Amino acid sequence: MAEKRTPIPIGEAVSRVMEYAEEGAAALIPIEESFGRVLAEDLTADHDVPAFDRSPYDGFAIRAEDTQSKLPAVLEVAGEIGAGSVYPHTAKPDQAVRIMTGAAIPEGFDAVVMIELVKEHTKNEKKYIEVSRSYSKGDNLSFRGEDAKKGQILAGKGTFVDPGVTALLATFGYQEVPVASRPSVGVIATGSELLDPEAPLEPGKIRNSNAYMLLSQIRRAGADPVYFGKVADDFEACFQTISRALKETDMLITTGGVSVGDYDYLPDIYKNLGANVLFNKVAMRPGSVTTVAEKDGKLLFGLSGNPSACYVGFELFARPVIRRTMGNPFPHLKRIKAILGADFKKANPFTRLVRGRLKYGEGGTVSAVPAGFNKSSSVSSLAAADVFILLPGGTRGYEKGMTVDALLVGGETGSGWPWENILPSYR
Amino acid sequence: MAEKRTPIPIGEAVSRVMEYAEEGAAALIPIEESFGRVLAEDLTADHDVPAFDRSPYDGFAIRAEDTQSKLPAVLEVAGEIGAGSVYPHTAKPDQAVRIMTGAAIPEGFDAVVMIELVKEHTKNEKKYIEVSRSYSKGDNLSFRGEDAKKGQILAGKGTFVDPGVTALLATFGYQEVPVASRPSVGVIATGSELLDPEAPLEPGKIRNSNAYMLLSQIRRAGADPVYFGKVADDFEACFQTISRALKETDMLITTGGVSVGDYDYLPDIYKNLGANVLFNKVAMRPGSVTTVAEKDGKLLFGLSGNPSACYVGFELFARPVIRRTMGNPFPHLKRIKAILGADFKKANPFTRLVRGRLKYGEGGTVSAVPAGFNKSSSVSSLAAADVFILLPGGTRGYEKGMTVDALLVGGETGSGWPWENILPSYR
Repeated sequence: MAEKRTPIPIGEAVSRVMEYAEEGAAALIPIEESFGRVLAEDLTADHDVPAFDRSPYDGFAIRAEDTQSKLPAVLEVAGEIGAGSVYPHTAKPDQAVRIMTGAAIPEGFDAVVMIELVKEHTKNEKKYIEVSRSYSKGDNLSFRGEDAKKGQILAGKGTFVDPGVTALLATFGYQEVPVASRPSVGVIATGSELLDPEAPLEPGKIRNSNAYMLLSQIRRAGADPVYFGKVADDFEACFQTISRALKETDMLITTGGVSVGDYDYLPDIYKNLGANVLFNKVAMRPGSVTTVAEKDGKLLFGLSGNPSACYVGFELFARPVIRRTMGNPFPHLKRIKAILGADFKKANPFTRLVRGRLKYGEGGTVSAVPAGFNKSSSVSSLAAADVFILLPGGTRGYEKGMTVDALLVGGETGSGWPWENILPSYR
Repeated sequence: MAEKRTPIPIGEAVSRVMEYAEEGAAALIPIEESFGRVLAEDLTADHDVPAFDRSPYDGFAIRAEDTQSKLPAVLEVAGEIGAGSVYPHTAKPDQAVRIMTGAAIPEGFDAVVMIELVKEHTKNEKKYIEVSRSYSKGDNLSFRGEDAKKGQILAGKGTFVDPGVTALLATFGYQEVPVASRPSVGVIATGSELLDPEAPLEPGKIRNSNAYMLLSQIRRAGADPVYFGKVADDFEACFQTISRALKETDMLITTGGVSVGDYDYLPDIYKNLGANVLFNKVAMRPGSVTTVAEKDGKLLFGLSGNPSACYVGFELFARPVIRRTMGNPFPHLKRIKAILGADFKKANPFTRLVRGRLKYGEGGTVSAVPAGFNKSSSVSSLAAADVFILLPGGTRGYEKGMTVDALLVGGETGSGWPWENILPSYR
């Protein structure tokens, strides 16, 4: 007779797991290697940007008042400044200074004329420009601090380092960047039916896709995967491998063996380890058998052996732990509203997470369309999915065109807590 | 007197560059390292998935017809099969076989009863189950080929390897994965005003943020950056470094020195190299000075020294070349329609690319909101930007609430050709 398990809501399950997500260590790495890492400290401006009033163009620094009486104004070119050099004098009336893009505006000048807009001539070995329209103070200047002010926090702790953040790091002197250390996450596939990818198919067996999928999911989440191989459905072999892996990693993911079948050894292994089972049934499809246990503060994620269920279980439970460990204040999948792209007329008591694709439509709309074959055992739908369509359990189905909640899969954005007020069917 | 340049439309400029994007080499790598790479071949199913009719549940394989006359049907449990093993006999009337999730349905059985729905009992040392409702042929079966059919192309050449694709690779026997080799892309920053990130600020100087930003952009695009350092505004030094870098990389990016200022040496360097300048002025803001040249089939991207202009220039011109080189059929930034989140009342003759953020709203809408300070010299707006808002040049401005085109920055999706029929202001 099968064990009876009590399903709990997804949000309740996720919150039980998040209690064990503790912030990890930080490391200093060279800025060249910072792309894709996560800031371990707030990134603060160490100076105003620009640090001085500067020219946005190649042209001439002038005194605006010299163009406000008689036109064209004829100004003597008193010198020139390249970017990076500084003009050592102060402006005198009817003077101009040749200036390059990015160069500091010299003392006493207060506007810039673009080079295309002047006529140049030479007289008695002196250079002059003619300016044919009048300028106001501040015209064509990039002002000190207009881009960023000293002391401003420009990217918070936990921010993903993308190229724009890299530019800020360089601007503010971070030749070495404090980043969150990547947690190590162990992966074990269980099941006597599993073949290695290189093995020829055998009757009744399947190739082990979940372990490799998880290695990719772990990398995408920002952590370091450690693969401990596949083990047959044998209590002792499973127990030994799991005990060892748990010692050697920050958290551990197994796939398979968590259901109520005769060869599902994970429940007994948790017992023998003395692990505390946080839950073993979640009111969701796929992945209702997802089990999470905790041993001395380390989490053991017991994901389903079904590929779609395993995939969803990772993204819902393991990913936010990894991201929170790395200081991310938005560790969960980003929740958005989208237009449902297909009918789901049959009611389901459990909340469904349909693997789908986001489509941007005319007029600034976004819809979510199921990605093909959507059973919990499906592997083909995963390659095409960039969104989970959230269909809360209940007594009604859903129709194409309704607005539903959806979770974005795979990006660097996130939600602080997506598990409240999810839109039910309104039919 | 400044050189006169003729601006060309963005699409025309991009298409001139794409003529030199030639597909590169492929490499075989272990599946464990495949995440984030790009497939160099179509990924084809080498067998049906499932490869056999199988059970989606833990339960009993039965003959549906045995439940169609008298209920409850009492069936003898003739054996059991774990996942991965095969039942060697053929079904007889009123027999059932205990079956685990994923196991092959034995010959002659045609439905599965979930374990939770049967009563088990033993009589004369034989095991029996009672089935209380009738089943039809095929109930609770996962059919051979329902997920994928042998010979089906499941992910095309040029596809980004995400976790779902990794799962497919494992399923279809790719222990080693054919991936596109990453092109090597050189980076050189030019400008006497540039300081290294670790250097203290000096009057008139700025820290070199563009080079590090480009290293991150190149990685994000999927290529391998090679940094050749920064060089002062000195013709000979620039020429030597560029000549060497061009020999050692597949393509080269410089930042700065492409404008019409007295210290802008790139035009002369292209001349001395004998490079063919594809264009030196694009009708866009920021980045109108973007210059691309070609020497013996290798591209030299001369990007602006202004951070925002440099960033945009890379994403518009260099990224698609990198991606096309790696076989991606959608190498350009993905274009979507979005609701404009702010007024841009002033008309501009050039097409603007405003750095913005995507916001998903109620009812399945998506809008694009400018990300702060948006001058071409801005660095702060880049860290917050995940979209370029496309505002075509013309005689009218744009208003908040209009539908506009926008280009998604930073994801793995893309467009085949986004430069046609861009929405102008309709006011």
